[in-house]
Amino acid sequence: MKVAVMGYGTIGSGVVEILRINRDVVANRAGEALEVTKILDLRDFEGDPVQNLIVHDYREIVDDPEIAIVVETMGGVEPAYTFVKAMLEAGKHVTTSNKALVADKGAELIRIAREHKVNFMFEASVGGGIPIIRPLQSCLTGDVIEEITGIVNGTTNYMMTKMTAEGSEFEDVLKEAQAKGYAEKDPTADIEGYDACRKIAILTSLVSGSQVDYNDIPTEGISHITATDIKYANVMGRAIKLLATSKAYGKTYFCRVAPFLLPPQHPLYNVNDVFNAVFVHGNMLGDGMFYGSGAGKLPTASAVVGDLVAIAKHIDKNIYLEWKEEKLVLANPGQQSYRFFVRSAKSLAEIEKVFSKVECVDAGIAGEIGFVTEEMTQKEYDAKAGELGDIIQMIRLA
Amino acid sequence: MKVAVMGYGTIGSGVVEILRINRDVVANRAGEALEVTKILDLRDFEGDPVQNLIVHDYREIVDDPEIAIVVETMGGVEPAYTFVKAMLEAGKHVTTSNKALVADKGAELIRIAREHKVNFMFEASVGGGIPIIRPLQSCLTGDVIEEITGIVNGTTNYMMTKMTAEGSEFEDVLKEAQAKGYAEKDPTADIEGYDACRKIAILTSLVSGSQVDYNDIPTEGISHITATDIKYANVMGRAIKLLATSKAYGKTYFCRVAPFLLPPQHPLYNVNDVFNAVFVHGNMLGDGMFYGSGAGKLPTASAVVGDLVAIAKHIDKNIYLEWKEEKLVLANPGQQSYRFFVRSAKSLAEIEKVFSKVECVDAGIAGEIGFVTEEMTQKEYDAKAGELGDIIQMIRLA
Repeated sequence: MKVAVMGYGTIGSGVVEILRINRDVVANRAGEALEVTKILDLRDFEGDPVQNLIVHDYREIVDDPEIAIVVETMGGVEPAYTFVKAMLEAGKHVTTSNKALVADKGAELIRIAREHKVNFMFEASVGGGIPIIRPLQSCLTGDVIEEITGIVNGTTNYMMTKMTAEGSEFEDVLKEAQAKGYAEKDPTADIEGYDACRKIAILTSLVSGSQVDYNDIPTEGISHITATDIKYANVMGRAIKLLATSKAYGKTYFCRVAPFLLPPQHPLYNVNDVFNAVFVHGNMLGDGMFYGSGAGKLPTASAVVGDLVAIAKHIDKNIYLEWKEEKLVLANPGQQSYRFFVRSAKSLAEIEKVFSKVECVDAGIAGEIGFVTEEMTQKEYDAKAGELGDIIQMIRLA
Repeated sequence: MKVAVMGYGTIGSGVVEILRINRDVVANRAGEALEVTKILDLRDFEGDPVQNLIVHDYREIVDDPEIAIVVETMGGVEPAYTFVKAMLEAGKHVTTSNKALVADKGAELIRIAREHKVNFMFEASVGGGIPIIRPLQSCLTGDVIEEITGIVNGTTNYMMTKMTAEGSEFEDVLKEAQAKGYAEKDPTADIEGYDACRKIAILTSLVSGSQVDYNDIPTEGISHITATDIKYANVMGRAIKLLATSKAYGKTYFCRVAPFLLPPQHPLYNVNDVFNAVFVHGNMLGDGMFYGSGAGKLPTASAVVGDLVAIAKHIDKNIYLEWKEEKLVLANPGQQSYRFFVRSAKSLAEIEKVFSKVECVDAGIAGEIGFVTEEMTQKEYDAKAGELGDIIQMIRLA
């Protein structure tokens, strides 16, 4: 079976590498050998073993009747969207690791694939090598999924783990992560939570069966978290983690991406370094969790190759996937309730006047008071915080 | 789509319950409604809403051309094997929660299903509600799986958690587990590791593609673990867990079921109570773990219903599954290396004469010495233990 790869960067070259190293085991499971015959890239890769496979025009792949499956590992919405659409319309199956593409165009590409009796798969778009898309789509189908909460960004989880272990400041840990290749030169998408936001939009679309617009999801990153916050977290016996979360509310979901303070008994408390994990609660299953290598060349490429094998086994059939283009109206995030950890420069008397009952947290920081509120809605908190003023920090409790 | 259920016990009635409670969401995902029209059981269930669906002869299901899918939740190899085989040969898809049947007859039933262009699925046979069979079979297919280690028996994990938390003896915890319904009246299959043994045989068959005979797997249970062992474990900062484990060795696997002493950084250390978890290491993926409700009526039935949906989506197609009838010759378990924790009534001089360098563990127990050996093969250990004599206990380190 002939395969084309679009984008010979980290993930794309990882796919080619796995198909070489695990050639026999993949052929056994797919029922036949998978051979990469064309690679689309702007570069020429002179001297590289793949040099002869490089093409610069995606229509060379569209027009190649021998190519049955196309791997898209370019990233970004365009031109990936144009290319993928053309491949599906030409009757070629597609697997992608591109969360931006899937979050933005997932429902449409799934429909186009169905119309052309091929498959559009995207296991690698969330959680890197961890199987999460297909388990949600083909295993937990007897359940109403009441919660999905994930640590789905390896970069920020590494940074929060480092800050916790070493008590260091955000900027120092970011520089170190960049030096190690764990964070990109422009780290915005990771540290501001945009990457996690697209991933929880994909997962929520999958379990609801409708299109979630990631622009509707309130999203905070970790760039405002400081070493002082970590000191408070230590006193509370909690860990700060960037969570992407979705909770059923009637027929819809509350979604949010933000740092949370997790207690030790939380299933995601022990997920450290670059690892990812997705916690799922089903109305019949109860609790489940998927944990593993959430990023990196080979783990992510491993998920793409898993898709290739699944496609090879379903080469003559579209596997029905419930993800309609119809937009899911998310629940109003102001109505979701939390307990809030707050640092304020006001006096305890002023704080208690506004928040009534609070639990103080003494981390020995002068000139401010750290406290935890009773449970209240986000909207109630916002009103009280506005009334109090001088809020230095707010982190929700999980 | 019409469904029959064979065995209206805990799991079977759970399947009927989920199809009722989650009726709409299941119909959406399956593409059509799933309706149970016949239930095979020896009992009549007079007054029960399902009374009119009860049949006592499995041929009434075989001969019903409307029934496309059969759920087998009877347990045990016979008569389940005879019934399931007849259903597949009649062109009906089958899903089962029966690990004894799958461990014993999996390869054969998969072949028969393929010959009749139907599917034989068994997600619920390992890990209850946790998706593990389908992820191995349809997600981690780009990887050579180098290790699978699971806590796959909820009863024994509950008991070990209780013994650790309370310092109580095995017999007392067993009685309590039986009173709570977590352990059966005859608990042999759980506490002697037979249940875990069948499950690791199934998982190893799936990743190797050949039939593993569970009789070849050295299997120890937890019935010999005492409150004194827990005291030693506490001193070592380790937890004792019953592990079912499989490690690649050339083209085959080392398999073993036994209690192990786990350090806190082990991915399964925090898996407590009746929860199950399966750790997987792939040569490309790296580490992954699947965690969740491993037993109980609704979690297990949830996995069966997930199979029903998958079958409904593949009603016209056999999904190829690599699990040949050819027997996998397992690696010689005597050649596998461990560090061993040992309790002996001999003197330290005698112990050091036989084992050379050991690390003593002082739990304040009079009349014996607890120690950890250096790493050696099982065979080397057995020889030295025979030479030393007076061994009170041996537990391997993970």
